[in-house]
Amino acid sequence: MTGLLIYKFIESLFKIPRSLTGNGVRETLSKIKNEHIPNLSIYEIRSGEEVGDWVIPNEWNIFSAFIKDQEGNLIADFKENNLHVMGYSHPIDKKISFKELNKHLYSLPDYPHAIPYVTSYYRNNWGFCITDIVRKNLKDEEYDVFIDSSLDKGSLTYADLIIPGKQKEEIFFSTYICHPSIANNELSGPGLATYIAKWLHNRSNRFTYRFAFAPETIGAIAYIAKNLKDLKKVHAAFNLTCVGDNNSLSFLPSKKGNTIADKVARHVLTNQHDQFKEYSFIKDRGSDERQYCSPGVNLPMVSIMRSKYGEYPEYHTSLDNMDFISPSGLDLSYQMHLECIQILESNYFYKSSILGEPFLSKRGKNYTIIGGRESYESKSSQLILDIMICCDGSLDIIDIANLLGKYAFNLIPTFHSLEEDGLIEKCE
Amino acid sequence: MTGLLIYKFIESLFKIPRSLTGNGVRETLSKIKNEHIPNLSIYEIRSGEEVGDWVIPNEWNIFSAFIKDQEGNLIADFKENNLHVMGYSHPIDKKISFKELNKHLYSLPDYPHAIPYVTSYYRNNWGFCITDIVRKNLKDEEYDVFIDSSLDKGSLTYADLIIPGKQKEEIFFSTYICHPSIANNELSGPGLATYIAKWLHNRSNRFTYRFAFAPETIGAIAYIAKNLKDLKKVHAAFNLTCVGDNNSLSFLPSKKGNTIADKVARHVLTNQHDQFKEYSFIKDRGSDERQYCSPGVNLPMVSIMRSKYGEYPEYHTSLDNMDFISPSGLDLSYQMHLECIQILESNYFYKSSILGEPFLSKRGKNYTIIGGRESYESKSSQLILDIMICCDGSLDIIDIANLLGKYAFNLIPTFHSLEEDGLIEKCE
Amino acid sequence: MTGLLIYKFIESLFKIPRSLTGNGVRETLSKIKNEHIPNLSIYEIRSGEEVGDWVIPNEWNIFSAFIKDQEGNLIADFKENNLHVMGYSHPIDKKISFKELNKHLYSLPDYPHAIPYVTSYYRNNWGFCITDIVRKNLKDEEYDVFIDSSLDKGSLTYADLIIPGKQKEEIFFSTYICHPSIANNELSGPGLATYIAKWLHNRSNRFTYRFAFAPETIGAIAYIAKNLKDLKKVHAAFNLTCVGDNNSLSFLPSKKGNTIADKVARHVLTNQHDQFKEYSFIKDRGSDERQYCSPGVNLPMVSIMRSKYGEYPEYHTSLDNMDFISPSGLDLSYQMHLECIQILESNYFYKSSILGEPFLSKRGKNYTIIGGRESYESKSSQLILDIMICCDGSLDIIDIANLLGKYAFNLIPTFHSLEEDGLIEKCE
Repeated sequence: MTGLLIYKFIESLFKIPRSLTGNGVRETLSKIKNEHIPNLSIYEIRSGEEVGDWVIPNEWNIFSAFIKDQEGNLIADFKENNLHVMGYSHPIDKKISFKELNKHLYSLPDYPHAIPYVTSYYRNNWGFCITDIVRKNLKDEEYDVFIDSSLDKGSLTYADLIIPGKQKEEIFFSTYICHPSIANNELSGPGLATYIAKWLHNRSNRFTYRFAFAPETIGAIAYIAKNLKDLKKVHAAFNLTCVGDNNSLSFLPSKKGNTIADKVARHVLTNQHDQFKEYSFIKDRGSDERQYCSPGVNLPMVSIMRSKYGEYPEYHTSLDNMDFISPSGLDLSYQMHLECIQILESNYFYKSSILGEPFLSKRGKNYTIIGGRESYESKSSQLILDIMICCDGSLDIIDIANLLGKYAFNLIPTFHSLEEDGLIEKCE
Repeated sequence: MTGLLIYKFIESLFKIPRSLTGNGVRETLSKIKNEHIPNLSIYEIRSGEEVGDWVIPNEWNIFSAFIKDQEGNLIADFKENNLHVMGYSHPIDKKISFKELNKHLYSLPDYPHAIPYVTSYYRNNWGFCITDIVRKNLKDEEYDVFIDSSLDKGSLTYADLIIPGKQKEEIFFSTYICHPSIANNELSGPGLATYIAKWLHNRSNRFTYRFAFAPETIGAIAYIAKNLKDLKKVHAAFNLTCVGDNNSLSFLPSKKGNTIADKVARHVLTNQHDQFKEYSFIKDRGSDERQYCSPGVNLPMVSIMRSKYGEYPEYHTSLDNMDFISPSGLDLSYQMHLECIQILESNYFYKSSILGEPFLSKRGKNYTIIGGRESYESKSSQLILDIMICCDGSLDIIDIANLLGKYAFNLIPTFHSLEEDGLIEKCE
Repeated sequence: MTGLLIYKFIESLFKIPRSLTGNGVRETLSKIKNEHIPNLSIYEIRSGEEVGDWVIPNEWNIFSAFIKDQEGNLIADFKENNLHVMGYSHPIDKKISFKELNKHLYSLPDYPHAIPYVTSYYRNNWGFCITDIVRKNLKDEEYDVFIDSSLDKGSLTYADLIIPGKQKEEIFFSTYICHPSIANNELSGPGLATYIAKWLHNRSNRFTYRFAFAPETIGAIAYIAKNLKDLKKVHAAFNLTCVGDNNSLSFLPSKKGNTIADKVARHVLTNQHDQFKEYSFIKDRGSDERQYCSPGVNLPMVSIMRSKYGEYPEYHTSLDNMDFISPSGLDLSYQMHLECIQILESNYFYKSSILGEPFLSKRGKNYTIIGGRESYESKSSQLILDIMICCDGSLDIIDIANLLGKYAFNLIPTFHSLEEDGLIEKCE
């Protein structure tokens, strides 16, 4: 089961302290490149460079951090969980009062066992994130706070991979690599992207495939700024996020709502056993489709997800960890995305090469020759007739599958066989 | 009542042993030509000729056939009912065991009183069809089986009729003539076609009318192969099948689903007293629309039916006989098809010749002159105003009738009168 | 409250004896011009002139009228209520029997306290309208009937006003001035039109505004005949009728049903507190949209109404008086029409000037910088992001407001501010 391989790879990335920028991102991308995708290209953009409406921030690196009480007890320790430090905290080494410390603490009263994930990218600040249980037990005394971090000119790191196909039109997968120890809402995406890329690598593909691994929001904006021309060739795009747990299926359509990406994703999701929930782009968007579907870019990008960001209690806390996701959860995501790919690869508009129905008797395709009251065609013959009456050049195989109440993925061999037999042909 | 005349004509054709090919078809077409439609053109296509993806089969003629038990009792006799012999049975004259005979018998356990209708056009075989009651009483003894038939090079016979109109655009009626003693699912179609053609014959028609009488499936495929260019002129097409009983109203749309044929047929059916059931082209098609709506042909062909083939217990059995259909059942089918014709003949896009409402007072069209609180226009004046506000050139009379909740057939005189008075004019 | 000013102005016009033609119309238009709209242009069309399909009738003036019984009691007196005389009654001065008189009386048995409003424009006749209570008490004796009226060659009077804007495209308001003492179904319209025109007068408008005050039906037909070319420039049109009471909200769409006028009106009505009832153009039209939406004219004209003509018991009776309408009823109509105007004035297709989301932090627009689990954007920032993702040039501000579930009128300042900040720009 590929899901298990993805799970194990994610596990090996879990403790790396990623952020918008810094060595955690570089280490994550290096492991993907060295262990799985040698062709991965890694890029750096200097702090201060303008991308779109934005400016690349200074690079942040974090080495160590803790809070100690007067007896030397560790209240929070970065070594134990890198979520304890608010992202982009500047260095500090100071004894402060509880009252002062309390202004820099973040916890979740409704989820007292969870460490929240908090960042402060664009304001000079520092902070610690702890469970509400720990916070409630803090005494009104002095505390030693220590953060060994650096926040200076540097660069933002991202990566991409192009797998050329017969056509220049691209299928694009985007995922983000900026959250530290978060499983579903971070590593499930890069993990799945890595294994989809591996699956595609040695195949002869119709479409060209593009993968981008970048920090969320500003990374996507930077990627658009650098690659806008190439992105115009995107035929279908998938944002890979929250693909790791096994609790539910979710779908976020593209902004246009009816692109080929929406069509194939809805078709694959509809043909899964479980029900899925379709969200609204306008009301519920929240990941990099905010950039990739923005005006002037407007890619046909959808998200096929398990539990969607913002919609499960563990979201953006220490509870979104390796126990929250599972090999089977990842595996279904993997299968669904591969089925989208395989349907898209075979998704042509076909037209019948003959007038009227085919004379199946002479072709020996399970054609039952006793006619009359009983259905005189076997079921597979009926399927051939049903497919062929739809092949008028105006419908692709997903349309035809939807019309016939079938799953397009399962019809692919029949279309290929009809084409080989000269009964149907692709429209140019 | 024309339905009674159709019924009587069908009765005179009932016993003729029709099949895909052979003298039964020729005799049927000759009676139509000689008794009703002198202009009918009858064609023959040689066995072995390729039509579309198909090949014209050998010609089959059947003269006599029976099964006798050892005491000389007739178990099945072609003279009594021509459904007893499986269509395209080759000759046989032999004494065989019950076990051997039983492999060649067809009956319907669920309908023990019915002789099923069975054919084996494209495989060399023989068989008898009997009621299940008779079959259950057969003893395990030897039987004499005798079939005097011929299956040799010959030809397939079909016919057509063209009634020229002012316009080259055609209204096309197709019907089939290949089932032996079957009433609703065979003779109701040619019977109705004959009387519609008679009605049209001496009229000055706007459209050109085309009628085809051919064996089902291969006959339609042959007709398309021979007439594809002319069929491109078809404006609306009706498949005449299962139009004889009085049990229900059924509608099978065209493949496109929204052609002018669909529009007029749904409008006429909706304005009948009884409810009608609309079937799905993709799921429920089964007659010659399978060919005429196939890719590359794709005629605007619909079927207005009574009990639809495959949907009534008597279908394809000896119970689909002259008792199953009725003069009143045929008559309503006749009326509905004539109303479709008359609406199509008058169905133009009109535009108002004036700006604003017409000044009906000066025209004396039931205009009540006392104004004020009570509706100041009589009902017929209101209808004129309602029609005229719709005459903007974008709506045909069926659209306008649908908007006003009226039956287009009943509005035709008003449209003609408004046109004569110069208040509306046809759009080119 | 402007509604109170409108109410008082209407009150001052209430007793003027308006009709299709005559001095009552002239006096009404003069008061509008002299007291409120000095630029109003007043026109006369001679009796006998052809307009569209119609002919301008003779001019009717009424001076005095009564019925007296033998004891000299006044049964009906024009001085008391000008509805007592049927519109276009010819002069009479005669003693007649009750039986003869009764043929010329109009009353409403279902509303015994109401004097009906009745006219007889296009037939030579006379009549009186009385309450059914009075009619029931009439004795079988002789009566003196007296009508001092004139019905001769003259002219039909109407008026219009043009307020030029930056664009030649027009927003058109039509209202009618032909009913005598009727409040909701007459004077509410001209009263509202007057105050809308006053509001527009000293503003710098994007659109050109046109107002027409004309007798219903023939006045609209005449206005079309005289101004068809200019009316082709109409961008949105509103028929002002039945805008005075406070009982309900009603909407009559244009004939096309989906014009910009329909869109803005439905949006404004949907964003009112109260529910509104949408009527059908085809089934329920009844005022000057019958002419302005007729074929060949087909303006995008809608009616935003309170209680719709023909749908309330007081309609076309003496009960549709100053007690039926109210300052607050008029005021809401005034506000809704002004909001339609202001939305239309600001209703552009905008496109984003940047790729991806804007970097709000650097702009200081309420951007909360602590990120993480909690929504990292304040509500107003979220609104900006929601608006900007919609600004792709394919949606106007009403579309965007509908998508976001907001009221476009309230979004106008945000659009203006985003445009000033260079984040969005108008599409040409």
